Amino acid sequence: MVSYLESQPEGIRCFLQLRDATPGSAITTELCDAVQNSHCWVLLITPSFLEDPWCRYQMHQALAEAPMANGRTIPVLKGIDRRDYPRELRCLYYIDVTRKENGFRQIKDTILRCK
Amino acid sequence: MVSYLESQPEGIRCFLQLRDATPGSAITTELCDAVQNSHCWVLLITPSFLEDPWCRYQMHQALAEAPMANGRTIPVLKGIDRRDYPRELRCLYYIDVTRKENGFRQIKDTILRCK
Repeated sequence: MVSYLESQPEGIRCFLQLRDATPGSAITTELCDAVQNSHCWVLLITPSFLEDPWCRYQMHQALAEAPMANGRTIPVLKGIDRRDYPRELRCLYYIDVTRKENGFRQIKDTILRCK
Repeated sequence: MVSYLESQPEGIRCFLQLRDATPGSAITTELCDAVQNSHCWVLLITPSFLEDPWCRYQMHQALAEAPMANGRTIPVLKGIDRRDYPRELRCLYYIDVTRKENGFRQIKDTILRCK
């Protein structure tokens, strides 16, 4: 998803923790910086996301930063059942890319709209 | 706060660095042991806490141990403005004991709930 987004002509820049975090700095601070310095937050919700406390932490920080999101929080579902959709995001529309061919395109369009 | 908590009939045991750390052992190892061996972490956030790198270190270690906390990280504010509340904790509710009479009681109840 990140490769797709960053290869687009619109010059979207992503923050990917494993790639972009500064080694040696406090994990939570890095994540907070990333959340605060981003226009929007794409939450790729997979079975692993739901099990990972760091992913959930980022989701909660994004929601704390902008509870009503205003289009900044973009939930993307992949391989999870609708009933496992986190209830904290229940009031937000999501993009389901599980069986969708143009899912990445839709994510890109949504990101560009919120800029 | 520690005196109050330890004098309660529920038998709460606290780890207080200056009192309980083993002299001669590495400070950071002691702190990590304390974080790992505790049911929950009460972060008493005062102006001194914010300035003290050891306090911040413990806060980050607690978050790294359980980023989503699940009620184990209990932020307690005393004498600091809400806007100075560490952003790493932003997604967690805190107890403000600055002007609250039953603040210690609320801390105790929260600790007992997370046991």
